[in-house]
Amino acid sequence: MKLEEIENPSFLKDKSDEELEQLAQQIRDFLIESCAVTGGHIGANLGVVELTLSLHRFYNSPEDKLLFDVGHQAYIHKILTGRTTDFKTLRQYKGLSGFPKMSESEHDVWEAGHSSTSLSAALGMAKARDIRNEKYDVVPIIGDGALTGGMALEALNHIGSEKTKMTIILNDNEMSIAPNVGAIHNMFGRIRTNSSYNKFKYDAEELLERIPSFGPSLRDLADKVKDSLKYLVVDGVFFEELGIKYIGPVDGHNFKDITKALESTKNYDGPAIIHVITKKGKGYYHAENDEVGTWHGLGPYKIETGETIGGSGTQSWSEFVSNSVFDHALEDERIVALTPAMPVGSKLTKFQNELPERFFDVGIAEQHAVTMSAGLAASGMKPYLAIYSTFLQRGYDQVLHDVDRPNLNVFFGIDRSGLVGADGETHHGIFDVSFLLPLPNMTIMMPRDEVEAKLMIDYAVEYDGPIALRYPRGNVKGIEVTERQPIEKGKWEVVHKEDKKHVVIISYGPTLDIAEEAKDMLSETNINVEIVNARFIKPVDEEMLHEYGKENVPMLIVEEVIEAGGLGQFIQGFMSQHDFTNDVKTIAIPDLYIEQGDVEQLLIEAGITSENIVNTIQKMVKHNG
Amino acid sequence: MKLEEIENPSFLKDKSDEELEQLAQQIRDFLIESCAVTGGHIGANLGVVELTLSLHRFYNSPEDKLLFDVGHQAYIHKILTGRTTDFKTLRQYKGLSGFPKMSESEHDVWEAGHSSTSLSAALGMAKARDIRNEKYDVVPIIGDGALTGGMALEALNHIGSEKTKMTIILNDNEMSIAPNVGAIHNMFGRIRTNSSYNKFKYDAEELLERIPSFGPSLRDLADKVKDSLKYLVVDGVFFEELGIKYIGPVDGHNFKDITKALESTKNYDGPAIIHVITKKGKGYYHAENDEVGTWHGLGPYKIETGETIGGSGTQSWSEFVSNSVFDHALEDERIVALTPAMPVGSKLTKFQNELPERFFDVGIAEQHAVTMSAGLAASGMKPYLAIYSTFLQRGYDQVLHDVDRPNLNVFFGIDRSGLVGADGETHHGIFDVSFLLPLPNMTIMMPRDEVEAKLMIDYAVEYDGPIALRYPRGNVKGIEVTERQPIEKGKWEVVHKEDKKHVVIISYGPTLDIAEEAKDMLSETNINVEIVNARFIKPVDEEMLHEYGKENVPMLIVEEVIEAGGLGQFIQGFMSQHDFTNDVKTIAIPDLYIEQGDVEQLLIEAGITSENIVNTIQKMVKHNG
Repeated sequence: MKLEEIENPSFLKDKSDEELEQLAQQIRDFLIESCAVTGGHIGANLGVVELTLSLHRFYNSPEDKLLFDVGHQAYIHKILTGRTTDFKTLRQYKGLSGFPKMSESEHDVWEAGHSSTSLSAALGMAKARDIRNEKYDVVPIIGDGALTGGMALEALNHIGSEKTKMTIILNDNEMSIAPNVGAIHNMFGRIRTNSSYNKFKYDAEELLERIPSFGPSLRDLADKVKDSLKYLVVDGVFFEELGIKYIGPVDGHNFKDITKALESTKNYDGPAIIHVITKKGKGYYHAENDEVGTWHGLGPYKIETGETIGGSGTQSWSEFVSNSVFDHALEDERIVALTPAMPVGSKLTKFQNELPERFFDVGIAEQHAVTMSAGLAASGMKPYLAIYSTFLQRGYDQVLHDVDRPNLNVFFGIDRSGLVGADGETHHGIFDVSFLLPLPNMTIMMPRDEVEAKLMIDYAVEYDGPIALRYPRGNVKGIEVTERQPIEKGKWEVVHKEDKKHVVIISYGPTLDIAEEAKDMLSETNINVEIVNARFIKPVDEEMLHEYGKENVPMLIVEEVIEAGGLGQFIQGFMSQHDFTNDVKTIAIPDLYIEQGDVEQLLIEAGITSENIVNTIQKMVKHNG
Repeated sequence: MKLEEIENPSFLKDKSDEELEQLAQQIRDFLIESCAVTGGHIGANLGVVELTLSLHRFYNSPEDKLLFDVGHQAYIHKILTGRTTDFKTLRQYKGLSGFPKMSESEHDVWEAGHSSTSLSAALGMAKARDIRNEKYDVVPIIGDGALTGGMALEALNHIGSEKTKMTIILNDNEMSIAPNVGAIHNMFGRIRTNSSYNKFKYDAEELLERIPSFGPSLRDLADKVKDSLKYLVVDGVFFEELGIKYIGPVDGHNFKDITKALESTKNYDGPAIIHVITKKGKGYYHAENDEVGTWHGLGPYKIETGETIGGSGTQSWSEFVSNSVFDHALEDERIVALTPAMPVGSKLTKFQNELPERFFDVGIAEQHAVTMSAGLAASGMKPYLAIYSTFLQRGYDQVLHDVDRPNLNVFFGIDRSGLVGADGETHHGIFDVSFLLPLPNMTIMMPRDEVEAKLMIDYAVEYDGPIALRYPRGNVKGIEVTERQPIEKGKWEVVHKEDKKHVVIISYGPTLDIAEEAKDMLSETNINVEIVNARFIKPVDEEMLHEYGKENVPMLIVEEVIEAGGLGQFIQGFMSQHDFTNDVKTIAIPDLYIEQGDVEQLLIEAGITSENIVNTIQKMVKHNG
């Protein structure tokens, strides 16, 4: 059959393993070709072809609930639930989401984007089922990387004590985004290699079998030991300790093995975990042999060679910032770098390789990353925590309590600030300004280009206290070094001075360029625009604001973050509090979730465009005479 | 010696166990008497007298770092580090903090307030030590309840793989705040009762000892098994699995046992955990026999009877809200209640006892609590999550991604909103408005009294989508039911209408009373004040704001949350965006951390007083002619 003809997974019920193998090949071919054009999380999906087919053959979706943790590994699920033809719009504006999406299909019973949520959600669903006396299975599918996120462990602790029926599929591919780290990961490694575990189990069983010949009293004792062994000496004792039945390890590319494991949970009325070993990138040479994580999520590529197409050009922001911090670290022994599972994404591999004793990939564990940074700072180090804006949301309380309140010397590199594009609404970095601005001791900066970024990094390294550098996704400009005002805390930079100004635009980061476009467009209408680079989002340049207030000049704040709690509202409040009557307007992201798409497109949707700035300013000028 | 004469813990070095026992008694007597007057976390502290004495005798603070998780159990530590005389000001304005405080003593190397942070901080400190080639011990002291918080588990996962020297003291008292829950807790219970574990260990050892007589080949096999046993079949296999050496269980009231365990870590160059069993409230009948958690933290009490003094009066807000939700739950089977370890504090014990199958105490696990609520909502239930404002900070990303984004039907009861008093800066609920207002689908309400609260709860139960009810610490007013406008989404209530108004005060919750006081004071000066109850913090009453805008009436927003990102700034922004030129001022909590003290005192410090409102309004009226 053609993949395009699949409407729902019920056709799988009477398929044999051999037929599924054929289908698996068909799906792999499709995914490799389709993602070569659109980009996407190809590696993760190639690893779960057999697993997803097996799950959909065994369970009845959507009555049974399949919850894909994070969700970027649900492409096969999407194919099996009638969305093959949509793949040409994958991760594009108004196109197929790269994650499960309740609005796309009734088979998408949970949506995520951030990792480690599926177990909590699954327990909620399982409990709802029990309370309502319904009958269905709840099946979270979670990676070994995601399992080390704190909330997944909180959920395991609760699941193990609630004893509710649930089958957890642990998709162990040894690599979530980068190679996984941590003690739980090491434990899985021991299980996979069958070292002490199985060896001990076999040895002990052999011993016990040879005991009968030694008389009845010893035999009794041996039986008792054997009973205990059954409980204790099995693989997955970690899970058994938590009250969760452990099944595995199972070859995740073998239909028979997976299905046998699933069958074994059928009559078990409690929580079970099936440990499935898969190979990320399975069946596609370039993805399968990826050892660093390049093939986790990527843009279009050439199928033959595995080369990525386009998208290179200048250095990425992540690389520029990480390298600059690395250069400082060579001179300044206080500097250590931390990342929650993003050494590749944050371009910290150089730091990792050359200063390994001062580098920490803590795994998917943002809360721990923030507070470990606080601990390092409290002991005289200067931790640099590189973290995507969207993931910093996971460590909000820790930033507030453990870093900001005791005023500790942590340098946050907030990567992917602003709209990020194809990953969509779960990955935009547009909330951090509203959740960091209220923190009393925090300093927040954003550079407009790499020249300014360099100055800010120099400043942050010497700064004493919590300080954040926001920087966007994508590449730096590749500009020449130009003269800049030195960085001074709370001082903004007038980048275009106008003696007879009609309006002042205040902006920071990449939106300054949009402001400049607007200025140019307005120059033809004889409206003079002064432009200010609000390089410090906190603290604001109070002196400058007072001056503009006295001049009573209209002000427009342009920013690529959510409007509520942003710099714009902060300035509107500031001017009101100080009895200034300037006309102050804000252009920012409105009160709704911005979905996936090209950043350019999304900026249009959000109204953050030179055209909208021009219109707004024209109205302001007219209104203010 | 007198406790008041203690300057630092070095005098303990040459004390015998017997001398420590005497000192322990002296400390207990002091704490019971002192806390009877000031209130405090007496139960937790009585449980760790011997433990703290042992730690300070064994280690050299502050060179060695003792980190008290949460920190409310550090009273003995404070006595031993020269702060006995300050206990009369415990938890009072400008007095001794109820938590470790870096500014109080060099022995306070870490400060917290929220649980589960000590392991991450300790790993940071241990790594800083290693990088700087320093020599000291790092000793986090963490309760069994705190250990189930996700970030503690994230840290364990990292600690177990880093292999850095560190001694974790697991203070297992079976009760953190309420009786602990979860699979890890159950595991500790099994260890404590020595059932299968020790029995198996002894049985197996007996068996192995009897094997030599059966010839060399079996003997070899038995040796191999014994080696494996040493690794596998010990108490604390959960920790051993994570790569952390487990020592225990140890009697936490026996100096000799504790010290022996500490000695055993001396030459171990990796992470170890000592499992210490303590009895919360030890040595004081009323606290020791507390089975629900009343004695966790409390006000003054009578030593003889254990009766608390004062503070009762009307019903608490927690009780009123929880009972109202419970009443609905009796009628509406969709309603389930969740709490992260606060069944007592949130007064949910009635719900817990009478509808146990629809009640979930998830333990200290705020992230999981939020997302489990989302899972319940996604399956047709109406979860009510009672959570203190300060603890909701831990679940920020989950509220945003897992509840708000998919617009799920979760009802948040945000307890202890606003300033909370004696617990100080880590416990004030003053950030939630700034972090919830930017969430697109969120609705936020706050009642001014219990009559309005009842209406809001009725509304929230029927509402479809994420909705939050903020309510303060302390008691309800005990008022008669009065006529109120019905609750309508985004509609505010004019509580004092003035036809010829000079100014409008907009406020919500308890600060409305302060506004009314100010109104009364101003009536003598012929300034007419209209008062609006902004019962919906989100969405705002746009229609009303437009009307005030058209009337160009000065507006003053009064709120007990941090100013940045609060309702005041939101309204200032709103009016600016809509071209209104009203004078809009905000009175809120300024950009600094508010410490402990009576709420009345703290409100004065923050400027949220009728006097300040009167002054501000007088200036506004003068300024606006």
